[in-house]
Amino acid sequence: MALKSSSEGLFILDQSLLPKAEKWLKIQGPDEMIEAIKALRVRGAPLIGVAAALTVAHYSLTEARPERWLDAIKALREARPTAVNLMKAMDRLRHLVEARLSGEEIRAEAEEIYLEDQKLCDRIAEQGVQVLQDGDAVLTHCNTGGLATAGVGTALGVIQKAHQMGRQIQVWVDETRPLLQGARLTAWELEKLEIPYTLICDNMAAMLMAQGRVHKIIVGSDRIAANGDFANKIGTYSLAVNAQYHRVPFYVAAPRTTVDPDCLTGAQIPIEERDGQEVRGFDQTQWAPNSSVFNPAFDVTPALLVHGWILDDGFFKPVDVKAGVFQRST
Amino acid sequence: MALKSSSEGLFILDQSLLPKAEKWLKIQGPDEMIEAIKALRVRGAPLIGVAAALTVAHYSLTEARPERWLDAIKALREARPTAVNLMKAMDRLRHLVEARLSGEEIRAEAEEIYLEDQKLCDRIAEQGVQVLQDGDAVLTHCNTGGLATAGVGTALGVIQKAHQMGRQIQVWVDETRPLLQGARLTAWELEKLEIPYTLICDNMAAMLMAQGRVHKIIVGSDRIAANGDFANKIGTYSLAVNAQYHRVPFYVAAPRTTVDPDCLTGAQIPIEERDGQEVRGFDQTQWAPNSSVFNPAFDVTPALLVHGWILDDGFFKPVDVKAGVFQRST
Repeated sequence: MALKSSSEGLFILDQSLLPKAEKWLKIQGPDEMIEAIKALRVRGAPLIGVAAALTVAHYSLTEARPERWLDAIKALREARPTAVNLMKAMDRLRHLVEARLSGEEIRAEAEEIYLEDQKLCDRIAEQGVQVLQDGDAVLTHCNTGGLATAGVGTALGVIQKAHQMGRQIQVWVDETRPLLQGARLTAWELEKLEIPYTLICDNMAAMLMAQGRVHKIIVGSDRIAANGDFANKIGTYSLAVNAQYHRVPFYVAAPRTTVDPDCLTGAQIPIEERDGQEVRGFDQTQWAPNSSVFNPAFDVTPALLVHGWILDDGFFKPVDVKAGVFQRST
Repeated sequence: MALKSSSEGLFILDQSLLPKAEKWLKIQGPDEMIEAIKALRVRGAPLIGVAAALTVAHYSLTEARPERWLDAIKALREARPTAVNLMKAMDRLRHLVEARLSGEEIRAEAEEIYLEDQKLCDRIAEQGVQVLQDGDAVLTHCNTGGLATAGVGTALGVIQKAHQMGRQIQVWVDETRPLLQGARLTAWELEKLEIPYTLICDNMAAMLMAQGRVHKIIVGSDRIAANGDFANKIGTYSLAVNAQYHRVPFYVAAPRTTVDPDCLTGAQIPIEERDGQEVRGFDQTQWAPNSSVFNPAFDVTPALLVHGWILDDGFFKPVDVKAGVFQRST
């Protein structure tokens, strides 16, 4: 849980400082949340949707003018371009504001979005746990746990569920350059959950697959297109290609809110490019201070490399996706 | 050039400090060189062979007892296990010592090894330049330039040669976690050479290949087996799998001294595992201080993923390798 909302205000755990410091920030208004989203203080496709919704809720209780709520919704919606959950949460609140609902009603809807996300995570874990057998070594990328959602997570929620059911699961954690969400956040969460894991650099996964030491791969998603292509943290696609070459089953776990039926294929998903400083070093340490850099935050994995889509409302195989299960959003 | 040998002594450019500082270290004897090799102050398969040979040469001029020279040769030979060039250079000097040659003769042989490596680099560049056309975007991994050899380098030497011949070449530089030889060293070399390049994280290469923005891949090698399998810096294998999937020609460039006919296949190449601290962070910055880590320094790429082996004595295709060109070392 990286978010707290109460009558005292809205607080986020600053994920950019983990694991060195566990610092909670009070969010004073939309501008601060936009900064926090852009700087990845709050991150994870499901969580930024929830966090933005709660920001609007708190704002609507202190700001009297609904037209200012709409401005905030619009600005929050544009904070990051790839994850569709943020856009959907904002559109949902915008409809209510346009229908002249009260601040109290907006707050209730935002809390509903929050509680829904918790339940979606539980259902994803239930749908996904079937893919993990006792003794499996599963590889994951980036962070998809309690820090990335309002609940137990997506891909990491599946792993946690299998662990809780008593299955022996060993996790390979990709460090996930450039912002190291695997090394900083997934490692931190797995330590707290007491699930055995081993950290690797992203470029080591292929060697492990060749050695037969990776049995399954499960990742999250920031947007799933109607044809099953999906965007996720940069590096996911390289894993998917390697998984196919080594015949390692490759799964994506996400809530239904991640599906964007208006995106017909992955080619239509906008990919955020971020500041080159993230690649030139990490934090204050810059090891290539003068370099020209390419820094896409996400890549797109085509549906043909995916063995199964683990959603809250079902486990979908390639044949289901071809039949059109992602051509609707609910 | 990262090595200087004269009557004043043997000096190395401490590559672990680049690009922040250009600091030359005087090597006082075999123990110091072994430390420098293990800590990657001096690195690159060809260069560590040359550096170890020159260390023995300087030592033999100050230490009177040839049995101590043999001890030094044995210890230097074991400093790192994967690159075969080091072993071959040490074996060459050991034969001379065992044949009771003088310190002066040892020194002459070490200088010969040094000069040979320079010439080998020039010939590799000549053999390899045919694969790069005007307008090519070429991706490389780790560092294979003037810092890694006594000459212009291997893979980077080929790129430099094409650039010098006036061909427009754009280079994608993999940062090469965990020790960032791409970001720290290749970027530094390409800046000095004024060759246009763009730095990426290792996990971004696949996305670029999918977008058709990588036309060729050239890497170096630490050991080539008799069947054409080769070991190189961790991450090379992942690139090779992705290159095949995206139909990007994949080349390895190395001197003939890298071929080990006694290794029948890549499975016989010993892979060095290094300290977990390298993966838990970089330098003084530790972002996953408590994590269990897997840290192989190299991986093995099977011959079937290679389009061409660029050696000083020829450009070899898969058919040549199957016919046995690597079953002899010269």
